[in-house]
Amino acid sequence: MARWEPGARERLVIAAVDLFTEQGYDATTVTEIAERAGVTKSTFFRHFPDKRELLVAGQETLSRLLAEGITEAPADASPLEAVAAGLERASGEMGPRNRELGPRLKAAVAASTELQERDALKSVGMAAAMTAALLERGVPETTAHLASEMGVLAFKQGYARWSEGERSDDDGLARHALQVLQELRTATAALG
Amino acid sequence: MARWEPGARERLVIAAVDLFTEQGYDATTVTEIAERAGVTKSTFFRHFPDKRELLVAGQETLSRLLAEGITEAPADASPLEAVAAGLERASGEMGPRNRELGPRLKAAVAASTELQERDALKSVGMAAAMTAALLERGVPETTAHLASEMGVLAFKQGYARWSEGERSDDDGLARHALQVLQELRTATAALG
Repeated sequence: MARWEPGARERLVIAAVDLFTEQGYDATTVTEIAERAGVTKSTFFRHFPDKRELLVAGQETLSRLLAEGITEAPADASPLEAVAAGLERASGEMGPRNRELGPRLKAAVAASTELQERDALKSVGMAAAMTAALLERGVPETTAHLASEMGVLAFKQGYARWSEGERSDDDGLARHALQVLQELRTATAALG
Repeated sequence: MARWEPGARERLVIAAVDLFTEQGYDATTVTEIAERAGVTKSTFFRHFPDKRELLVAGQETLSRLLAEGITEAPADASPLEAVAAGLERASGEMGPRNRELGPRLKAAVAASTELQERDALKSVGMAAAMTAALLERGVPETTAHLASEMGVLAFKQGYARWSEGERSDDDGLARHALQVLQELRTATAALG
């Protein structure tokens, strides 16, 4: 990022999500996003090739963090313990801005088929990244798939609870995501 | 479907998937799909509003069948037994044509970002339909989400084994999907 535009990337993401919510994804132009963020159009293009990639970029970072946490978990961690480490690693990068973004992003996604597909692909990308990291650790394939899907559910539902919860609750995302993971683990006993 | 064009809908789907594989999704036109299927363009439009919806239509049917199977499972069926009933119901509608389509569809999806997103949305749609049907049965939310994700994994991996397996194995899709579901159930004990 250019030194003379601190936070431009983050401002662009927030401006984009707001505009998608207000007027829809399709109707929003790169020019409008740049204007709302208070940067030039060429600054936009230094950060993202187009408005779609603006969303993809954050999702790829998230998948990378989840996988890194799994890879760096202690050698004797169980599959779910490794997934928990991935959730902690990714959650650690999510601050108050991400929390604020949650409800806005949800509204934007609800209003756009294209964003729904992007959101679906995000879940699949997260699961694929976690599965690959678990397989690297020697976790058998079926177990790896199952643990990854539980990790995706934990992240998404934990994020929803965190971003929709009371603002006075200043816990981080990690606590919520790990709580959901624990609930899912308990639920395995009730599957029948 | 018009009586004088038996199988037009199915021929259109197969022609489309072949063309997507050969030349890419974006480069394929409705005119080409209709020509390859040996029907007129207006026949195409009697079945589908556009090439994208051609894929969506099959996916919605699949989600509906999965949910119906779950809904109609015996009242005392466990969550996973209900999911198994959904898999049997959906599998029952998948014949040799669907089996043939598998590897072609896989190649087409691998070559197109748009089809990857559509495929991701399909998984999300299947999970949502199964979750809703399980909640209807009184299954608690976390258990319902978990059982549904296991159902999606079982369907997708079962379909892959079925469509990529030996042709001499003339079992239906159901056996493969239920086998994967059983493996996932066993894997819950190895999550740690």
